[in-house]
Amino acid sequence: MSDGAEGARKFRWVGTRPVRPDGVDKVTGRARYGADLALPGMLWGRVLRSPHAHARILAIDASRALAMEGVKAVVSAEDLPEIRSEQAFVGEGPTDFRDLSHNVMARGKVLYHGHAVAAVAATSAELAERALAGIDVEYEVLPAVLDLDAALAPDAPLLHEDLVTKGVNPPPQRASNVAERVEMGHGDVEAGLARADVVVEREFTTRPVHQGYIEPHAALAEIGEDGRATIWCSSQGHFMVRAYTAKLLGMELSSIRVIPAEIGGGFGGKTTVYLEPVATLLARKSGRPVKMVMSREEVFRATGPTSGTRIRVKMGCTRDGRLTGADAHLEYEAGAFPGSPVTAGAMTIFAPYDVADVRIVGLDVVLNTPKVAAYRAPGAPMAAFAAESAVDELARRIDLDPIEFRLRNAAREGVQAPYGPRFKRIGHVETLEAARAHPHYRAPLLPNQGRGVASGFWFNAGLQSSADVHINEDGSVVVTSGNPDIGGSRASLAILAAEELGIDYARVSPIVADTSQVAYSDLTGGSRVTFATGMAVVEAARSVVRQLRERAAAIWEVDLDDVEWRDGAARLRAGAGREPLGLAELAARAARTGGPLAGHASLTARGVGAAFGTHICDVEVDPETGSVRVVRYTAVQDAGRAIHPSYVEGQMQGGVAQGIGWALNEEYLFDADGVMQNPGFLDYRMPVASDLPMIDAVIVEVPNPGHPYGVRGVGEVPIVPPIPAVANAIHDATGVRMRELPMSPPRVLEALEREG
Amino acid sequence: MSDGAEGARKFRWVGTRPVRPDGVDKVTGRARYGADLALPGMLWGRVLRSPHAHARILAIDASRALAMEGVKAVVSAEDLPEIRSEQAFVGEGPTDFRDLSHNVMARGKVLYHGHAVAAVAATSAELAERALAGIDVEYEVLPAVLDLDAALAPDAPLLHEDLVTKGVNPPPQRASNVAERVEMGHGDVEAGLARADVVVEREFTTRPVHQGYIEPHAALAEIGEDGRATIWCSSQGHFMVRAYTAKLLGMELSSIRVIPAEIGGGFGGKTTVYLEPVATLLARKSGRPVKMVMSREEVFRATGPTSGTRIRVKMGCTRDGRLTGADAHLEYEAGAFPGSPVTAGAMTIFAPYDVADVRIVGLDVVLNTPKVAAYRAPGAPMAAFAAESAVDELARRIDLDPIEFRLRNAAREGVQAPYGPRFKRIGHVETLEAARAHPHYRAPLLPNQGRGVASGFWFNAGLQSSADVHINEDGSVVVTSGNPDIGGSRASLAILAAEELGIDYARVSPIVADTSQVAYSDLTGGSRVTFATGMAVVEAARSVVRQLRERAAAIWEVDLDDVEWRDGAARLRAGAGREPLGLAELAARAARTGGPLAGHASLTARGVGAAFGTHICDVEVDPETGSVRVVRYTAVQDAGRAIHPSYVEGQMQGGVAQGIGWALNEEYLFDADGVMQNPGFLDYRMPVASDLPMIDAVIVEVPNPGHPYGVRGVGEVPIVPPIPAVANAIHDATGVRMRELPMSPPRVLEALEREG
Repeated sequence: MSDGAEGARKFRWVGTRPVRPDGVDKVTGRARYGADLALPGMLWGRVLRSPHAHARILAIDASRALAMEGVKAVVSAEDLPEIRSEQAFVGEGPTDFRDLSHNVMARGKVLYHGHAVAAVAATSAELAERALAGIDVEYEVLPAVLDLDAALAPDAPLLHEDLVTKGVNPPPQRASNVAERVEMGHGDVEAGLARADVVVEREFTTRPVHQGYIEPHAALAEIGEDGRATIWCSSQGHFMVRAYTAKLLGMELSSIRVIPAEIGGGFGGKTTVYLEPVATLLARKSGRPVKMVMSREEVFRATGPTSGTRIRVKMGCTRDGRLTGADAHLEYEAGAFPGSPVTAGAMTIFAPYDVADVRIVGLDVVLNTPKVAAYRAPGAPMAAFAAESAVDELARRIDLDPIEFRLRNAAREGVQAPYGPRFKRIGHVETLEAARAHPHYRAPLLPNQGRGVASGFWFNAGLQSSADVHINEDGSVVVTSGNPDIGGSRASLAILAAEELGIDYARVSPIVADTSQVAYSDLTGGSRVTFATGMAVVEAARSVVRQLRERAAAIWEVDLDDVEWRDGAARLRAGAGREPLGLAELAARAARTGGPLAGHASLTARGVGAAFGTHICDVEVDPETGSVRVVRYTAVQDAGRAIHPSYVEGQMQGGVAQGIGWALNEEYLFDADGVMQNPGFLDYRMPVASDLPMIDAVIVEVPNPGHPYGVRGVGEVPIVPPIPAVANAIHDATGVRMRELPMSPPRVLEALEREG
Repeated sequence: MSDGAEGARKFRWVGTRPVRPDGVDKVTGRARYGADLALPGMLWGRVLRSPHAHARILAIDASRALAMEGVKAVVSAEDLPEIRSEQAFVGEGPTDFRDLSHNVMARGKVLYHGHAVAAVAATSAELAERALAGIDVEYEVLPAVLDLDAALAPDAPLLHEDLVTKGVNPPPQRASNVAERVEMGHGDVEAGLARADVVVEREFTTRPVHQGYIEPHAALAEIGEDGRATIWCSSQGHFMVRAYTAKLLGMELSSIRVIPAEIGGGFGGKTTVYLEPVATLLARKSGRPVKMVMSREEVFRATGPTSGTRIRVKMGCTRDGRLTGADAHLEYEAGAFPGSPVTAGAMTIFAPYDVADVRIVGLDVVLNTPKVAAYRAPGAPMAAFAAESAVDELARRIDLDPIEFRLRNAAREGVQAPYGPRFKRIGHVETLEAARAHPHYRAPLLPNQGRGVASGFWFNAGLQSSADVHINEDGSVVVTSGNPDIGGSRASLAILAAEELGIDYARVSPIVADTSQVAYSDLTGGSRVTFATGMAVVEAARSVVRQLRERAAAIWEVDLDDVEWRDGAARLRAGAGREPLGLAELAARAARTGGPLAGHASLTARGVGAAFGTHICDVEVDPETGSVRVVRYTAVQDAGRAIHPSYVEGQMQGGVAQGIGWALNEEYLFDADGVMQNPGFLDYRMPVASDLPMIDAVIVEVPNPGHPYGVRGVGEVPIVPPIPAVANAIHDATGVRMRELPMSPPRVLEALEREG
């Protein structure tokens, strides 16, 4: 498992760029996404959503809807079992199942505009939509809490009357809108800051932004006469869908089968359930399959954006550019139920740096907006916005090149992270050095242009994965795993199998299996699939190789140790006299030598390698309009080892694109009643291809010693540096520090006018 | 693996009769069979079939069909690669892929009426049917060979001009219609018969009969832009469908995924392909999914019945009832391509008996009728008709009770079977004793009634099986295998898993996985699923139990050997101080103790246990009409151990029902041109419930030492004794020996008149 052995090896497939197995079907429109599935006799389900941001539900009367011809069932929270508060960790983070149940279907109160109140199933989508008007809900409207100040006010209206802040000792005597307080760090931050020659203290704010996946949530559920359910849906983890649906409906896991559709983007937003339990309930009540597909507006109003935040940082350094102390206070909006990514924000904010004295305090705050969901490196981009802006300011103050400043303070092997453990072999320094050496960093700038640099960190996840490697009778191979393929994992898993088995990549067929046909796997998230599921594939393939050697040894009547597996064939280690036995030959003889050849692995992945990236961004600011255009962008990232470099680059480019959108344009706009004003892609402005330059992705490989091929997760860290890289570039171009997102033309213009 | 250990054990689930998991969906019509599947944009395919029993194809012109609006593709043999003759053994028996290809689509010649010549895909089933008339085929009609005499005549027209009889030394100089000659036995049959006090020599004939499954063949195929195919179909083995389709179309196995539908009966007839390669070709050519469903008429005309046969036996015994010699000559019709079950007929004909001097010769004969397919205990029922009729006659001749006669000669452990090996522990004697002890055997008979007895033997198969046992996070269990469930194997596999794991049967969800989601498994056939796939489930479950003990040992910090698994929980073997850790608790802790709990097994099953049955049949013969009614029937069978007794009984009852239909009514009626005259269930008369008495199934358990639970296959042997049991009963009632099937009223009446 050490990199040493593999490091010296020449790879045949690892590091090459074959076409992804799902590619052709995806570009030709044949791939089946969540909404592409249909069953005979299927009904359509629609959700009735709250028109209020905060209100008590006094009564629900569905009789008018149920009287409509073709309306087959209506469900509300009454149809769901009451669930006690119970934290579970499935995939990306902790989930409280009572909250999840109440988010899926409001019970007692509605907590945000768009909150699901009831759902109807009817014989057509149009009829189901019309039937919503036949469900009468009586509300008592309550004052809504719509921003952090309002939520934290001493006399704030309470979303949850039993919510007592966790992490405070002694526990508070009364409820509040603060769900949790986290604190971490080491050393003495006051002493550290006192040693500094320069200190900056700044406050940054960010707005909720949506993951913006192209495919809206969609689910199709069917229940047999015996109560067993089958659910087809698009998600980041069908085992998660099974677990959450089972929990919410009080079902046993083995009575639910979830079959994954292709997924048209998730970015963390499909790590929870919205429609699946509702469709299942409607199917149970109507006795018919029920399909539900969200509109884009529903996606915006009722699925998780990420937190709006307010972050105060205070950082100090010596005149020669050594960080002496770092202090941060983070307030993250959780939306209607506890669970913002403030803990991850706190853990990551100073993680790229080796600072002796650090303190971070974070608050998880509920308010009457949609419950946040994970969004790519959850919590980290906002934290990086604050810290990397401050670092940039410190470097400027002592007149030190910002990359050099970061190099003098960069976390490296053995350094203690602010959240506790010491780093293993990591590549922050290597990404900084590669960025400094990149021609981009020395390229001239035009008038109104500026250059910014920022680094980013993400833990990456390990979690549980399973994989099967089945050898077909002709020696072709099927690799089965339980992770939806978002970023090209079919290709990376097939490459790993081909490499281990020594056969052609084209002979390997990777399959995303359903919950009943492969052992448990955690979510596709946490940048973990090529790392952890890849590890399972390698382990399963090695088990096959051992079986192949055993079969050859038996055929040749020699000891197992005399047989090696090389270039796709069993070979006698010493001496000659035996023709090598290739995979196809051994596969053809499998029936007579012991049976089918198959390897399996299930594991909780250890050896996760942390990821770092350093980005260089050039912007041009229009001083007349405040419009900011990214004119050049280079992202350098340590991938550990890039199994399929194109898809690593794709992850980097995608993360940067999302980060730039977040930096410059995206935001939830609520009116005074908490109604989102821009729930569509016309008004919620995500970057399109013409908004962005080609993003140059530079892969650095500092192999992760914890993975057999040195893999680190690559999917999340690229979204961490862009916001501060853009902000630092704007400062470089204009001399103005933007500390509020998005850095949209009006805000930039206002800042230019204020400070210029 | 020895029975000793398990024999003493008290079982919790083995031997009980829980509801089968697929039962409710099947009786309520929710289960999806081959024809129940649909895809958007799907076309319908239909097959153009030969109007001649034997003809040369001179030209095929599809231009008129292709000019029809909505007709999207036409295929013929030209679209299939030419395949060299190659024997393969997949599941039930040898297949020659060139013959298979030519059977799926006639190349050069048509060899039977109904033989596929071309196929069309169009936007509706009706249009596809109409389009067949737009395909012009020019034939040169050849003389057809329609019975054994015609086929064996020295100047017979040849079906295959290159067919040289195998198994003859030296090889014949010229082609014939005899594909193979088999010979087996031991000792000196002439000497053996010379020692006999009584010898009978008789000839028996049987007609082709169809497996008569209720569900016609159906397939739906789709091909992606990258050429990868997905096939949904009903079959006895989706791995077989994948293998055969790949072979016939020159595809790689990993580029085909076959998803099994439920199967509405197969009985051996769904162990080969007819529509699947054609639908796949049409899908490839049209770029659209293509669905094909046979009519009942097509099923009769163009899918495999079993052989018509002519069998001559000569058996002799001493006056005290010891068999001294047995000689047989078998001629089996193969239909249009070689491959009748004559070898199995030869192997089984005398297998129930311990005879020192035995010889069996068999011929595999081609003629211009549909290529035969496997049918439940292929080849054995006709052989048993001959041998068991002769045995009955010998017993009568020496005035010995026919069961006592059989007991004096019954094969038992250590006896050499006529086909070579010595029997392991078998239960023929026990079935005879149980039959003799059964009240039925002493019950009085009414006028015109008679009682017959017959025994039957079947090898049973082992072959390759794979199974996965996945433990869900809540401790519920999914058991995955690759065998379509025909006779209740989901239930038996779930019982075995529940027994091994010590948990509730209801917590186990058995799944039939597709070819990409489980390792290779051979056909559902050969009475092998509960035996061999069950063995894989047991092995996989034991692997899980070991993991569970390891996890508990790690949690308790004790040695693995100190932990036992009993009643669904890990328990400290000695001493107390530790609460047992149940499956659900260990499952909940899996993520932190090493990852998902899953067991897998792939094996070539050894230790197959041969099956024997002894049947008692009472008939009443109407002397006016020749009509025979079965008035009482008792089937005794050694099941080794009945995992789910109801489904063992169901197999026994089903086999008897089919055997009675074969005995009394079923037959293919061809006209002089080789056109089947009764291709529908009105004219091809299978028994319905009102035709039969309740069949009393008596299970005898002589555990098979080769299986961890003592299982023997149970599906096939029950069809072996009914034909001779009925014939012997008719003789008992009337004094007339029927030696020609079916024993239908006209034939019986004729025999009564001739002999009476």
